[in-house]
Amino acid sequence: MRSIEELTSQWKKEDLLMPIWMENDRIYMIDQLKLPSENITIEIDNVDQLSKAIKTMSIRGSGAIGISGVYGMLLESIKTKGDKESIKKAGILLKETRPTAVNLMKTVDKLIEITETYNRSDFEDYFEEKACDILKDQLYFERKLGEYGAEMINDGDSILTHCHSGALAGSGFGGRALSVIRTAHMQGKKIHVYTCETRPYLQGARITAYELDRLGIPFTLITDGMSGYLMKLGMIQKVVVGSDRVAANGDLINKIGTYMHALAAKENGIDFYTATSSHTIDFSLSKGMDIEVEFRPEKEVTHLNGQLITVENARALYPAFDVTPNELISGIITERGVIKKPYIDELKKF
Amino acid sequence: MRSIEELTSQWKKEDLLMPIWMENDRIYMIDQLKLPSENITIEIDNVDQLSKAIKTMSIRGSGAIGISGVYGMLLESIKTKGDKESIKKAGILLKETRPTAVNLMKTVDKLIEITETYNRSDFEDYFEEKACDILKDQLYFERKLGEYGAEMINDGDSILTHCHSGALAGSGFGGRALSVIRTAHMQGKKIHVYTCETRPYLQGARITAYELDRLGIPFTLITDGMSGYLMKLGMIQKVVVGSDRVAANGDLINKIGTYMHALAAKENGIDFYTATSSHTIDFSLSKGMDIEVEFRPEKEVTHLNGQLITVENARALYPAFDVTPNELISGIITERGVIKKPYIDELKKF
Repeated sequence: MRSIEELTSQWKKEDLLMPIWMENDRIYMIDQLKLPSENITIEIDNVDQLSKAIKTMSIRGSGAIGISGVYGMLLESIKTKGDKESIKKAGILLKETRPTAVNLMKTVDKLIEITETYNRSDFEDYFEEKACDILKDQLYFERKLGEYGAEMINDGDSILTHCHSGALAGSGFGGRALSVIRTAHMQGKKIHVYTCETRPYLQGARITAYELDRLGIPFTLITDGMSGYLMKLGMIQKVVVGSDRVAANGDLINKIGTYMHALAAKENGIDFYTATSSHTIDFSLSKGMDIEVEFRPEKEVTHLNGQLITVENARALYPAFDVTPNELISGIITERGVIKKPYIDELKKF
Repeated sequence: MRSIEELTSQWKKEDLLMPIWMENDRIYMIDQLKLPSENITIEIDNVDQLSKAIKTMSIRGSGAIGISGVYGMLLESIKTKGDKESIKKAGILLKETRPTAVNLMKTVDKLIEITETYNRSDFEDYFEEKACDILKDQLYFERKLGEYGAEMINDGDSILTHCHSGALAGSGFGGRALSVIRTAHMQGKKIHVYTCETRPYLQGARITAYELDRLGIPFTLITDGMSGYLMKLGMIQKVVVGSDRVAANGDLINKIGTYMHALAAKENGIDFYTATSSHTIDFSLSKGMDIEVEFRPEKEVTHLNGQLITVENARALYPAFDVTPNELISGIITERGVIKKPYIDELKKF
């Protein structure tokens, strides 16, 4: 049995929520565009199909896209019995699907390097072992992050989360924010999750709710404007969100809406945490407001499921992310521990 | 020509956005449930039909419902040539459509009192004059509130508003928040409005956007979680919202989501105003958090246009309102002036 097959069958037993996996020399992935109304598995036979799936967002989330690169190059190696040129070409093609995805660049470049430097005859087997190592590392990362983060969660806590920072955006355990929540739940802490629907794209209503439901973690769906009042009513004890980027001073860049939850948390004396990877800390960005946030198409605000929800020709704005200043953040949860204030110093040491 | 016909034709010339009016001894109203995708006028021949329209929310907003009571009783008087018993019966039926609507109670009770106390033979004409007086008073109220409020708005301001507090919720000029915005616009101040969509019911995307579009006031639609970041970017200079109730200490009870905009405004040094009527100040409510906020059906969060937006059986919460503490409020705009801190003393004087 191939190493990758062993890994897949082991992870299936552990009930991971894998966004992508391999069986019988084929790649499979959950079509995240269809969740939760339909649970469809896409079958992928070649790297071209995989590239298309990444581009159309059937698979999404930095961790998940990163491991897609691994699966894609491994598939190419299996199909060509370890033809180095084909593997490298596959890697280059995969990188082009999402040029700003740091994780994807890193995993693909690592495998390209192995392809270029390993010269013994057992290359095909060696390549597979190394690919499996990256996948195992990713999962280990999520479990470690979950352990550190769960220390911040008390028995009985109700936890607010925003957007989707979960298993299907990672490698199957819980991505970032969900790894913390899942670990606390596995430790037997009685927790409840408030998931914000996250307009306009509804990631919280669709995907976070799907994962919480699958894992049997009690949750309640709310709209993005409700968190403050529920905090005031004493119904929320912690906030845990993911992160798109963390600046060198600890400012958080994350899905639009995050900043307002952080303000409400501060006002109501509630701890606000971001779960991130040490690789997501961008030391070239001295503070959060220096970032140029992407403004997405107006239609994503004016339309929902293809239907116009406002007057025709209404203008709209959709900044994809916002910036939460470091003073509103109680701790930055990483796979190497929880970083606390003062962030500039602590992040430097880190 | 009847007095009510004269009034209607005058207001049509002034380009008011009337939620309800009378022509040829019939009541007409805009079906607000259909806005903005369809602009349908409902024709109403009797008080039973009117009651049904109020119950199904084809007409909504405290001001608009209040004047519906006037139109209903006037219609009954016209149809019965001033039969007092029929008019009183109509008033009682109308009050039952929305037992908590303070404005409706007040207008209907005023007309019932006239019915019971006026004993001269010209009762039918007298009743019509008095009904018209109430309608004129309502409109005068909106114009005065607009004038006081517009003093708070500078040339060039971008104004954030939440939910719908406009003409169709009032008697046609601009209700509460929109009266301020409309007056500033009529004064020639160059303003821009950011209207929050207001999940889950989308009043901001649907009705506020419709009114701004009709009035030619430049606006941009955003989701509820975006206001904070736009403030941080310096794109918003004022916040003006309506009010469902104001407590004796100045705390504001308003549509869910309001509190978080107020927090963001405070953090970013932006003035936050509520536009209200002096009748909406509830001196029996000593502070906002004493109020028992209505929790509406979960389905209004889990479904949108009848479609499930999350996993099946997901639980949800929908507190209809939230509470904004008085310290976050820069001024309470009323038809008798703008009330400023300290609210407990100033409201008492008022």
